[in-house]
Amino acid sequence: MSDRLVVTMGEPAGVGGELTLKAWQARSKQSPRFVVVDNLGRLAAIDPSVPIQSVHDIDQAMAVFDEALPVIDVPLALPPQAGQPASENAPAVIASIERAVQLVLAGQAGAVVTNPIQKDALYAAGFTRPGHTEFLADLTQAQNPPVMMLACEGLRVVPVTIHVSLRTALDQLSTELVVEQARLTHAALRNDFGIPEPRMAVAGLNPHAGEAGAMGEEETAIIQPAIDALRADGLNVVGPVPPDTLFSAQRRPTYDAAICMYHDQALIPIKTLDFAGGVNITLGLPIVRTSPDHGTALDIAGTGKADPNSLLAAMDMAAMLARNRHDAG
Amino acid sequence: MSDRLVVTMGEPAGVGGELTLKAWQARSKQSPRFVVVDNLGRLAAIDPSVPIQSVHDIDQAMAVFDEALPVIDVPLALPPQAGQPASENAPAVIASIERAVQLVLAGQAGAVVTNPIQKDALYAAGFTRPGHTEFLADLTQAQNPPVMMLACEGLRVVPVTIHVSLRTALDQLSTELVVEQARLTHAALRNDFGIPEPRMAVAGLNPHAGEAGAMGEEETAIIQPAIDALRADGLNVVGPVPPDTLFSAQRRPTYDAAICMYHDQALIPIKTLDFAGGVNITLGLPIVRTSPDHGTALDIAGTGKADPNSLLAAMDMAAMLARNRHDAG
Repeated sequence: MSDRLVVTMGEPAGVGGELTLKAWQARSKQSPRFVVVDNLGRLAAIDPSVPIQSVHDIDQAMAVFDEALPVIDVPLALPPQAGQPASENAPAVIASIERAVQLVLAGQAGAVVTNPIQKDALYAAGFTRPGHTEFLADLTQAQNPPVMMLACEGLRVVPVTIHVSLRTALDQLSTELVVEQARLTHAALRNDFGIPEPRMAVAGLNPHAGEAGAMGEEETAIIQPAIDALRADGLNVVGPVPPDTLFSAQRRPTYDAAICMYHDQALIPIKTLDFAGGVNITLGLPIVRTSPDHGTALDIAGTGKADPNSLLAAMDMAAMLARNRHDAG
Repeated sequence: MSDRLVVTMGEPAGVGGELTLKAWQARSKQSPRFVVVDNLGRLAAIDPSVPIQSVHDIDQAMAVFDEALPVIDVPLALPPQAGQPASENAPAVIASIERAVQLVLAGQAGAVVTNPIQKDALYAAGFTRPGHTEFLADLTQAQNPPVMMLACEGLRVVPVTIHVSLRTALDQLSTELVVEQARLTHAALRNDFGIPEPRMAVAGLNPHAGEAGAMGEEETAIIQPAIDALRADGLNVVGPVPPDTLFSAQRRPTYDAAICMYHDQALIPIKTLDFAGGVNITLGLPIVRTSPDHGTALDIAGTGKADPNSLLAAMDMAAMLARNRHDAG
């Protein structure tokens, strides 16, 4: 099952449909095969030259994949306008995610790859989760809060605080949080990435990792105790590493994942190195889930300029993770 | 005068001496010529195979440069022990900086390139400035607080808060600070870098630049007003840009300098892209001053492993800046 992916629609006013069509066009013999849960009519309107075919299950989808993009149709309330999300279509966005998750939970597909959603449009329609990931955690009855990993060629990062202001991130940071997310990362590196002895580097928070307290106390008060606790468990962990040196070309090959203290500490190096090819991976879910490392790109939706590389990388990553998890399980 | 540089000793227990000797060995016809204000005996001890010559002024230094590293001798209280700074030698460290600045202020040389100092060793000897840059500002009677720029191939960044904890940086951030440093950066880009119409990008502080207040208020309360003020002056400024996308390969060519909100926001992209070749430039001083973008490296001092690329890049940058300032003046 691990080479059968389910792709979600995402926000229909964004670039998701264009990306999915381009990803199918870019397929090769080595590419993972996938089915998209999306609206047939709106996909046909984006690029009528791409053959698409309505399917009802995964077996049928895999059978047609070489000839046409297989689509499990979801109805839309309104024809989408590129760049202008409509809350009327929010139920379809949600239904696409639910259906994709069901297919994986039922063992018919190996992983979910999600196209980006527009949260405000969902909120306006009564969606109550903070985001995509929390919704997936609910749908899969995850036992722990999921963890976000970003990956590009040669670098994996895990921000322990995510979509909050920098000031709130400082308030949220705790030894428990760092320990919990590092443990979950360690398990994922082993089980999903197939790395028998994962090496992790924990970033400091402050310039020069605080210089022994001269520029901040969090390294001594919060981060070092977390590293000590992880080492006591036998984990291979270094740090707190000065944040600005952690992502240098010399350092990157010395660890399998960097545990980062806040969103941009993790995201700046990924997007500086590889803006178009980054992948977002949700660790700690009962299912394998990846997504492209970008948003709905409403500003370029409908122009044909969207770059499918991140979605393609997310598909390759999902297939790899599903294979490892399947082999380990 | 612009192609005549004065290099300081820096911390004699660090890698400075080794770097200076290696930089002289790496010289080519195109390299800027330089004199170092350092201790003759200790340089000879680091690598006796490099010819060095005691000189008394810059003309003499330039005359011998092709044959030997010219040294303006400063006495040391103790023979330096690699890796172990001694506060007894602090007066010599300070004297080297003072002498170098005098030579540039007197018009005999075009720029100062400083080797890294060890601040604790200076503090122990009664040095009262927060750092190198503040000392240089005092010595040159600078009219404004100097600004730190870091540069590597294809990227220049200016952190508006520097060597303070991240929490303190958030407290220090103000519209005035951003405006002041951006104005000074603009002037330096024009006068020292020879860019007639500088383009600046101002980073946000929070993830996704705050998403209109959903993840932090600083963009609307502090940063946007600064951008408005700069634009009212006719400056070409964009922002607040989401910090994680600001340094991507697509974005970097769109601005001449990124104005950053804190140390690691500026330093992570520089060191991720080019760990060994980054240059630190002090803007807003009456003299041109650059330095390598690394510290005293006490852990590898005396081993011969120090990489002179950052010092060489600092020299090239100093010569370029001095030439532009000279031509403009």
